[in-house]
Amino acid sequence: MGGKKRVQKKPQAQSGDAEKVTERVEEMKIGDSEPDCSKGLYGVCPFHQSQSKEGPEYTEIYDLFDSKYVDKEVCVRARLHRSRAKGKLCFVVLRDRQYLLQCVLSTGEHVSKAMLKFVGSISKESIIDVYGVIKSAPAAVEGCFPDNIELHISKVFVISASSPVLPFQIEDAVRPDDDEDNLSRVNQDTRLDNRFIDLRTPTNYAIYRVEHGVVHLFMEYLDNHGFIMIHTPKIIGGASEGGANVFKFKYFNMDACLAQSPQLYKQMAIASDFGRVYTIGAVFRAEDSNTHRHMCEFVGLDLEVAFKTHYHEVVDLIADMFVNIFKGLQRDYAVEIETINKQYKAEPFRFIEPTLKLEFAEGIKMLREAGWEVGDYDDLSTPAEKFLGKLVKEKYGTDFYILDKFPLAIRPFYTMPDPHNKVVSNSYDFFMRGEEIMSGAQRIHDPDFLTERAKAHDIDVKTIQSYIDSFRYGCSPHAGGGIGLERVTMLFLGLDNVRKVSMFPRDPKRISP
Amino acid sequence: MGGKKRVQKKPQAQSGDAEKVTERVEEMKIGDSEPDCSKGLYGVCPFHQSQSKEGPEYTEIYDLFDSKYVDKEVCVRARLHRSRAKGKLCFVVLRDRQYLLQCVLSTGEHVSKAMLKFVGSISKESIIDVYGVIKSAPAAVEGCFPDNIELHISKVFVISASSPVLPFQIEDAVRPDDDEDNLSRVNQDTRLDNRFIDLRTPTNYAIYRVEHGVVHLFMEYLDNHGFIMIHTPKIIGGASEGGANVFKFKYFNMDACLAQSPQLYKQMAIASDFGRVYTIGAVFRAEDSNTHRHMCEFVGLDLEVAFKTHYHEVVDLIADMFVNIFKGLQRDYAVEIETINKQYKAEPFRFIEPTLKLEFAEGIKMLREAGWEVGDYDDLSTPAEKFLGKLVKEKYGTDFYILDKFPLAIRPFYTMPDPHNKVVSNSYDFFMRGEEIMSGAQRIHDPDFLTERAKAHDIDVKTIQSYIDSFRYGCSPHAGGGIGLERVTMLFLGLDNVRKVSMFPRDPKRISP
Repeated sequence: MGGKKRVQKKPQAQSGDAEKVTERVEEMKIGDSEPDCSKGLYGVCPFHQSQSKEGPEYTEIYDLFDSKYVDKEVCVRARLHRSRAKGKLCFVVLRDRQYLLQCVLSTGEHVSKAMLKFVGSISKESIIDVYGVIKSAPAAVEGCFPDNIELHISKVFVISASSPVLPFQIEDAVRPDDDEDNLSRVNQDTRLDNRFIDLRTPTNYAIYRVEHGVVHLFMEYLDNHGFIMIHTPKIIGGASEGGANVFKFKYFNMDACLAQSPQLYKQMAIASDFGRVYTIGAVFRAEDSNTHRHMCEFVGLDLEVAFKTHYHEVVDLIADMFVNIFKGLQRDYAVEIETINKQYKAEPFRFIEPTLKLEFAEGIKMLREAGWEVGDYDDLSTPAEKFLGKLVKEKYGTDFYILDKFPLAIRPFYTMPDPHNKVVSNSYDFFMRGEEIMSGAQRIHDPDFLTERAKAHDIDVKTIQSYIDSFRYGCSPHAGGGIGLERVTMLFLGLDNVRKVSMFPRDPKRISP
Repeated sequence: MGGKKRVQKKPQAQSGDAEKVTERVEEMKIGDSEPDCSKGLYGVCPFHQSQSKEGPEYTEIYDLFDSKYVDKEVCVRARLHRSRAKGKLCFVVLRDRQYLLQCVLSTGEHVSKAMLKFVGSISKESIIDVYGVIKSAPAAVEGCFPDNIELHISKVFVISASSPVLPFQIEDAVRPDDDEDNLSRVNQDTRLDNRFIDLRTPTNYAIYRVEHGVVHLFMEYLDNHGFIMIHTPKIIGGASEGGANVFKFKYFNMDACLAQSPQLYKQMAIASDFGRVYTIGAVFRAEDSNTHRHMCEFVGLDLEVAFKTHYHEVVDLIADMFVNIFKGLQRDYAVEIETINKQYKAEPFRFIEPTLKLEFAEGIKMLREAGWEVGDYDDLSTPAEKFLGKLVKEKYGTDFYILDKFPLAIRPFYTMPDPHNKVVSNSYDFFMRGEEIMSGAQRIHDPDFLTERAKAHDIDVKTIQSYIDSFRYGCSPHAGGGIGLERVTMLFLGLDNVRKVSMFPRDPKRISP
């Protein structure tokens, strides 16, 4: 019999001649000279160019949890996850995202040995159409989901064949990193280099479902609280926060750069009486940071709010929004979170209500009391932040808290100073599991004071003149913040690297795929 | 008495000394030496640095449509739209977006001449707090909304003063362009240069509300139809469609460019079994087109769908989505549409169900029959598209239709050829009011055939190798399209320029603000 020959027959693009497209199947000959009783029941379909509008009624694997399909004929299109021929039988497991369906083919009146051989030879990861009858499984089918049924195959057609050599095996890509065994793992760069394979794991699908959930819940909360979504340009004439770390390029005959934040534009919307705005979009940082949490491009969830009396109106609103996101994720994405935690173990995310709000000085005090050396007005290093997160978790039992009243000197020039204590400011960071996920502040809404503060930061005022001028014609007091979508997703799920939650991450060393 | 002296007193940033912040008001002296019976009832507030959490309870102008406020004391923060002193009276109109509230100040026991003078001197566009009692208006207040009430002022404080000289007047910015009068208009560049003023008009606020509506309805439909939202990188290593017109830049030591479309990434998500995906984000085109409908950066609403039998499954789904968007806009944004149409007159947008789907060849036939000279396989020029839109509207009564089966030669290399007619392709454009708002196709999902088609288009295959390789491991047949958010908004509203629906447009001549 020899080794398996994997089906890799190249589809032939039809060039439009009047071929009979009703004849859907090209028959395969695999060295079998006897008459084939399965003729027409298997093969590689002609290249799918939407030849006809007539086709079978397809059933999705997840539909098959419904017992009404038992003893019914179905047609399922899915990926061949694995197959195993065994005498007169061939077991095929079909995969569609997290769902796995066992299918059985056995030689008989309408199933030839040639057909069995053909099915056993289809490359893993090929997209195939399988026809047959759903039967109750005699025993739970190990590793399948649903595991109480099998599909008894009558026909199999290859829709899109996979190359037989995969960059890595899906089985290897779904193993928990920390299990002690000698089985293969797939390292992160291999995953990212072959993202179109890596993303096929149930864990990855679940991760991006959760990320969609974060965006959905963010928008839902804000839409229900009088916000309007705006879109801000990514191409700008000067550095968006007057700083370094920008990607620069030629825009026709002008100098341009990529926006490091939508802040100027959010603030202009406030100066235009939009009142409450949010925007979702790419944010760019030309920062040569190769850490688990930095990327050169990420998705910013930014919001800006005009308030009446005190910027804590905004802080409290954002805190309430986060609590709604966390609750929504735990309510609507429990299955996804469980799927992810099977591969990447993590403590459940904990938060308390009302959200804990600590002053920066209190945080410093907690750190010092725990033996950490830090100055009163020093910026917190990443290890200090993480350690403080641990102390806060121990003391208050929450993975989510706010640090308020940062020292003025370590915040951007547009940050509003505190009215009573000149060394601190009306600014805040939000933390999840000890890592910063949002930075924000009350902004200076007076052009002259803004100019004064820019100068104090050695910023060339000319480069930000239009920003400053936008406050010249009256502007409501306002505050806001910028949230990193990937960080929120990563930390909510307790993952260890932001590249796990960015579909196509960009860092100083990676620009593809 | 002399001319009005406009209040422009510069707020003083407090530097944190223990000032008494309870004393909220700096008193103004305007050359009045007699004792002021209004002392403490007017003035310029100290610069708003969130001095206290104690403040008045504010009422929004739109709340005042509720008659329960009549004869009640309120405090309203809004913009001073205009004011007029008249003997012992001063009329002040407050504005908050589309709402205008008349307020009346009259000298009396607690209102001094000095106070009257102060209020009359506040610059237009300043943000002010006005306290007083809501009274039923003796007659409808012309030009106000609500127009059946007035606020009888007891106290007025300036929160953020406007410079007295505005780049243009709001009144001039809201006039219908086509009314025949001799009154001022504001040209588009002046508007865009001063967008933080221009966006204050009720028309502009309504436009961005509608644009938010388009996004909201787009997402709602897709979320209800099993789609998952993804985020795709804007920074890429090669030209996203293998073409020219890209902005190039240095990414650390690598060559990068800005994505012209998220297509490669949407397709990778399909190759990863995500099934139905959409993405919303900036799209970049370094095209030197200075037209009413081209921008160098716009918001793409992109979607990609795996289908089973025929790409019309996807075309029909997208058509249904658009119909849902149109219905949703007409249902939920009627007030905004009316507001916009007051300034920019337009025929209501009309569509029929089911959506009209014409083949390209039929479109050509209609054009020829109407005397337009065009070849069978020529691409349609913008005037030809518009003319065809007119013919379609006359014949079918719809502003929305699909042109299907475009000639293969005029579509991108990844477009699936038609299986029966080699000169056409499984591709389509969607039109609104005769202008293209979405281009899409069934994509080639086979790496070898894709390579062949890329070569036929003289594309250097090396530059798109990772794109091609993503189809090497099995991929479902799929189709999709990219929608220009701004074009949909513009054409639904019947506006004449995409710069009216882009908050901060980018074209070959504009990169700021």
